[in-house]
Amino acid sequence: MTLPTFPDSLVQRGADGRILLLVLDGVGGLPGDEQGRTELEAARTPNLDQLAAESSLGMHHPVAPGVTPGSGPGHLSLFGYDPLVHQVGRGALSALGVGFELLPGDLALRLNLATLDEEGRIVDRRAGRPSDEDALRIVRRLRDGVRLRSERTEFFLLPEKEHRVVLIFRGGRLGEKLRETDPQEVGVPPRTPKAFRPDPDPASETTVRVLRDFLEQAREILKEEPVMNGLLARGYARYEGFPSFEDRFGLRGAVHARYPMYRGVARLVGMEVTGAPSTDEEAVGLVERHFGEYDFHFLHYKAPDARGEDGDFEGKVKALEAADAWIPRLRALEPDVIVVTGDHSTPATMKIHSWHAVPLLIHSRWARPTAGAFGEGTCRGGDLGTIEGRHIMSLALAHAGRLRKFGA
Amino acid sequence: MTLPTFPDSLVQRGADGRILLLVLDGVGGLPGDEQGRTELEAARTPNLDQLAAESSLGMHHPVAPGVTPGSGPGHLSLFGYDPLVHQVGRGALSALGVGFELLPGDLALRLNLATLDEEGRIVDRRAGRPSDEDALRIVRRLRDGVRLRSERTEFFLLPEKEHRVVLIFRGGRLGEKLRETDPQEVGVPPRTPKAFRPDPDPASETTVRVLRDFLEQAREILKEEPVMNGLLARGYARYEGFPSFEDRFGLRGAVHARYPMYRGVARLVGMEVTGAPSTDEEAVGLVERHFGEYDFHFLHYKAPDARGEDGDFEGKVKALEAADAWIPRLRALEPDVIVVTGDHSTPATMKIHSWHAVPLLIHSRWARPTAGAFGEGTCRGGDLGTIEGRHIMSLALAHAGRLRKFGA
Repeated sequence: MTLPTFPDSLVQRGADGRILLLVLDGVGGLPGDEQGRTELEAARTPNLDQLAAESSLGMHHPVAPGVTPGSGPGHLSLFGYDPLVHQVGRGALSALGVGFELLPGDLALRLNLATLDEEGRIVDRRAGRPSDEDALRIVRRLRDGVRLRSERTEFFLLPEKEHRVVLIFRGGRLGEKLRETDPQEVGVPPRTPKAFRPDPDPASETTVRVLRDFLEQAREILKEEPVMNGLLARGYARYEGFPSFEDRFGLRGAVHARYPMYRGVARLVGMEVTGAPSTDEEAVGLVERHFGEYDFHFLHYKAPDARGEDGDFEGKVKALEAADAWIPRLRALEPDVIVVTGDHSTPATMKIHSWHAVPLLIHSRWARPTAGAFGEGTCRGGDLGTIEGRHIMSLALAHAGRLRKFGA
Repeated sequence: MTLPTFPDSLVQRGADGRILLLVLDGVGGLPGDEQGRTELEAARTPNLDQLAAESSLGMHHPVAPGVTPGSGPGHLSLFGYDPLVHQVGRGALSALGVGFELLPGDLALRLNLATLDEEGRIVDRRAGRPSDEDALRIVRRLRDGVRLRSERTEFFLLPEKEHRVVLIFRGGRLGEKLRETDPQEVGVPPRTPKAFRPDPDPASETTVRVLRDFLEQAREILKEEPVMNGLLARGYARYEGFPSFEDRFGLRGAVHARYPMYRGVARLVGMEVTGAPSTDEEAVGLVERHFGEYDFHFLHYKAPDARGEDGDFEGKVKALEAADAWIPRLRALEPDVIVVTGDHSTPATMKIHSWHAVPLLIHSRWARPTAGAFGEGTCRGGDLGTIEGRHIMSLALAHAGRLRKFGA
């Protein structure tokens, strides 16, 4: 017997404990300085250390031991959604990230604006990274010019950032099992959409027909463009809809995030977007401004992951130190529970997301403190042990007084 | 949706990281010397300790907390096969161990050569532990003499070691739900094969008929034998076939093991057998000789379990010290990942397999070291936490650069 929605059945509706989740994206690391410390251990974080001294500490595997999570599954796990059950593709995350209201059944995908030569071969997979304004001009030309032959299906086209565009098809049964047209290399033409063999499913064959129609018309419309004259399709994702955060946990949730994708994954579970801050400082300000309006606040901080992917150990250390400075402001709001963790590790020595367990801190008046520092070393010796990421939400709810006893 | 074969879908085909798995059978122990140390803690293992200083440490439950694994499930778990999903009986392990090519649908079982008195009561359940040559003589008499009445079913009979013989039935639908004829005591006659009540399944009734037929004819053939005049049947196992190690993980695997059963469990998942070494030294030599030919090497070392079952604390300590001496040779091969662990614990104080968590070491350039010694104490404080055994393979694959990121 599986209980996929556990601990939903234990949720105490009408409780009022407030939860703040601070995600330090990619916080986990590997030894990288002369003393063999990780980025988090090397960072001077007096406020996080003080918070740790009053918190239960632990480590978590966002998906499972050995599995390196993408940002989508990593965050879904933190939100209490088993990422093996609730899967979502890149296209859907992008669509949600730019604020598009996806409906169940929609098929979303990512398009790259690309440059093709006269023989139709790819010269630049990102069309020289156009400005957002230039990309928007192309998006408008396509919106105005393309008329799908299928009357059952309509399309929506939205710019994401630079060369990145999101395409959504709506109407008809649309599958996602078709190959990407982006060959991931230059000097060859884009691939033609084709359903996966063997056993292509009829819904995906429908998507193939609609997408081919779209791409052929687009090719014609863009053929005189000097740079942005090609499109590469990837990240097909049929959106199935998610049980909402509020329905499951009785929490009105808000996301405060600088980057669209993280707003997207939070909207996927029904959190509200408080704004599109252009700095991290502004994102923290949004938490302060809206604190009383929501039960659950998700504050996303991208820099540790970005510096980790750059292979910049010292830069990641500094990024974590910058976050430390916000802790007093966040504590001043007096959340009943503060969770600080990451959606995965991004060791600067690896320059990429990794599978390594992620430090976890849960602060509440019911904590079992074990150490006065926030780092891999203290967390692995903490009271929570090493858990699966999807259990963090249960712990946060429990610490907030929002879970009833299980059984008589 | 369940993904019983996760992380298979993430496997990066064509990657080239090499993995070495050293199984110290029964390595986990309990405090047994005056200082309260376990066997592994008491052993002088400078090479393992140095390896640990460069490794991620942890503990694992091969099946689940509180569950004492047999050798089959213990190893399947280490190979990344959930032992609750992939079950295999003793008979099938024995058949594979002696090199028999089992086919799906085969029904394998273990026979003991036994001694019966004139009234047919068991005098010795192991017929005085005959030599392999003596046992082979009996096996040949039975092969020549028995003619099954059912034309749909044929049988194969192979000596395993001493009094142990393997019998395989092939053809027809053969079930495994029947009682063992070995009463596990002397002074009583062997039991008659019977399908389990209530609700015997027709396939197992078929096995009952075929086995009775076989045993009756055998009794007649052996009745003049002075010592090996009886047979006791146990360990019925219908072989269903396993998804192969190579298909699942993209790994060409090899087993280097002195004892047939461990070659058997490795063959079950499609590993190749490099030989039948008669010493542990020879087994290590096989790893060296064949290192370049395989992606995954499984080196099995039986002695710690055997000494543990003897209740010989000091002998188990010495057995572990002997393994320590091989570590420099194995490291010289430069595997990308070295995993050292056991398939279960066998505390000398208990003289039997136990359910206690098993020390685990994973060495790679991406490790998070925490301690300079390999023992229960250091492992339980290690970075991996306490995990289920079936996740070890995911970690080994990740450390070898053989798993893609999960999700966007």
